[in-house]
Amino acid sequence: MPFEIKILGSSSATPVFNRHHSSQLLTINNQLFLIDCGEGTQLQLIKYKIRFTKINYIFISHLHGDHYLGLVGLLSTMHLNGRTKDLYLFGPPGLDEIITIQLKHSETFLNFKIIFTELDTTTQKVILDLENLTVETIPLIHRINCCGFLFKEKPKKRKIDKTKIPDHVTPLQIIALKEGEDVIDKEGNLLKSEQYTFPARKSRSYAYCSDTAYNPGMFGQIKGVDMLYHEATFLHDMESRAKETYHSTTLQAAWTAKETKVKTLLLGHFSARYKDIEPHLAEARTIFQNSFLAEEGLVFTIDDEPL
Amino acid sequence: MPFEIKILGSSSATPVFNRHHSSQLLTINNQLFLIDCGEGTQLQLIKYKIRFTKINYIFISHLHGDHYLGLVGLLSTMHLNGRTKDLYLFGPPGLDEIITIQLKHSETFLNFKIIFTELDTTTQKVILDLENLTVETIPLIHRINCCGFLFKEKPKKRKIDKTKIPDHVTPLQIIALKEGEDVIDKEGNLLKSEQYTFPARKSRSYAYCSDTAYNPGMFGQIKGVDMLYHEATFLHDMESRAKETYHSTTLQAAWTAKETKVKTLLLGHFSARYKDIEPHLAEARTIFQNSFLAEEGLVFTIDDEPL
Repeated sequence: MPFEIKILGSSSATPVFNRHHSSQLLTINNQLFLIDCGEGTQLQLIKYKIRFTKINYIFISHLHGDHYLGLVGLLSTMHLNGRTKDLYLFGPPGLDEIITIQLKHSETFLNFKIIFTELDTTTQKVILDLENLTVETIPLIHRINCCGFLFKEKPKKRKIDKTKIPDHVTPLQIIALKEGEDVIDKEGNLLKSEQYTFPARKSRSYAYCSDTAYNPGMFGQIKGVDMLYHEATFLHDMESRAKETYHSTTLQAAWTAKETKVKTLLLGHFSARYKDIEPHLAEARTIFQNSFLAEEGLVFTIDDEPL
Repeated sequence: MPFEIKILGSSSATPVFNRHHSSQLLTINNQLFLIDCGEGTQLQLIKYKIRFTKINYIFISHLHGDHYLGLVGLLSTMHLNGRTKDLYLFGPPGLDEIITIQLKHSETFLNFKIIFTELDTTTQKVILDLENLTVETIPLIHRINCCGFLFKEKPKKRKIDKTKIPDHVTPLQIIALKEGEDVIDKEGNLLKSEQYTFPARKSRSYAYCSDTAYNPGMFGQIKGVDMLYHEATFLHDMESRAKETYHSTTLQAAWTAKETKVKTLLLGHFSARYKDIEPHLAEARTIFQNSFLAEEGLVFTIDDEPL
């Protein structure tokens, strides 16, 4: 089953031609999750032929414009396109007021319901618990309330080896075998789960961390994730500017990845001062080799591997 | 002196790839006026290398998202770019509240002052009176409060013919000659304005009318303008849909141009249902030959001609 991150925007607040403000589309087993929604996100979704109707969950990290100003436009378009399905929206206090006031003045009465969860950005908390995954807030260090999001698949079941399983095994016994339990069949034979099933697939995880100053406080929470998106607004020679603006440098992102032993690091939220961002990559790779630039249009996949 | 309209967006509410939401940049004698500011306008300004700092006046016709959702992003970027100069903003009631609430939640304290004029969209009124031009509201017929804008140069002065003017003519006499008055010089000669000056240049005018149902009520006000931008959301076979949504068809835009004897008609605000908009042009030209499609990136110039 797919677990993919598609990058819709890689730019920090000051816009620059050919980059877009922060937004990512996460696909997990055919569910689409939109993370942040900077100005113009709906045009990026159209460009990449992503069907708005399939997006049921939107997460906003904080209320700086480059992370949410595309939201009201996207909601309006969903409405114009005839959406009636509930939309789950997660964001900091104030986001509901911002939306409500704009819908009021445009006299727009949405055809669908927004189910808004106001986030406490200062604590780690499970904010969404679905059949196959959970989403948690990751407290970040920024000028205003801001949190990242940790997407974690739940532990998976083993898969039945259909070439081996005897015909007389009952559905309940199948469930037990998938859970890793051994069963005794009606003939009195012990059927070991290990013999009749394939190992469960690994539970995959993705941590989205933008915007934040260097933030060791989150290391425990994101430890060992498959993929970490960490902002890298500046090259490391701008460390003091990064600190002052509550952002991170390439090396701080790379240290975070190294310390937390993640598998892959994505870098983004590049300052408009950099026309060429290859030096960001080179600098991060001096610390953490498996780093990539999260540029518009790229898709990063987390493989579905055996445990 | 230039009088130019640059088209930044031609799309109606539902976005479509390669078109942008409504926005136009008007240049009159080196002053820049931004009319409407749909989502992504700041990216369009960057694309066309327009310096944000030179924009001192912004006009918002109404509070449907496709006409203003780019405004808060543009203001934020002006702030990040260090703007300190006052910005004059004109828009319907509610626009100030929308801006204020978003700046509050992002904890942004602008370095510059916004001087906001709340518009009564139901009356014709001069809302800006500068040295060389005035701007008036044009009441439009739409689902919510909505007005267009009429930009009119003030009557111009005649120009001195430097090859003819005697050296002893005083500065005050020069001013009088430019005003069309005849003067008597110190030698007792009658200097006729007509003989010593070139005719004044024509005062140019531009009317921006989006969004509106077919609106004969405005014909008197826009009569004879040099250039009229009129929305043409639909082809004329969709007349009933246009009526229902308080929009216009190509033929209605063309009839308006013909009835009011404008010189040039620009068509825009095209519905996403039309991939190809050449039929819009063809249809309008059956009524009004001097019609053009107001597509992204195009610049329309009103010539500076003698009266």
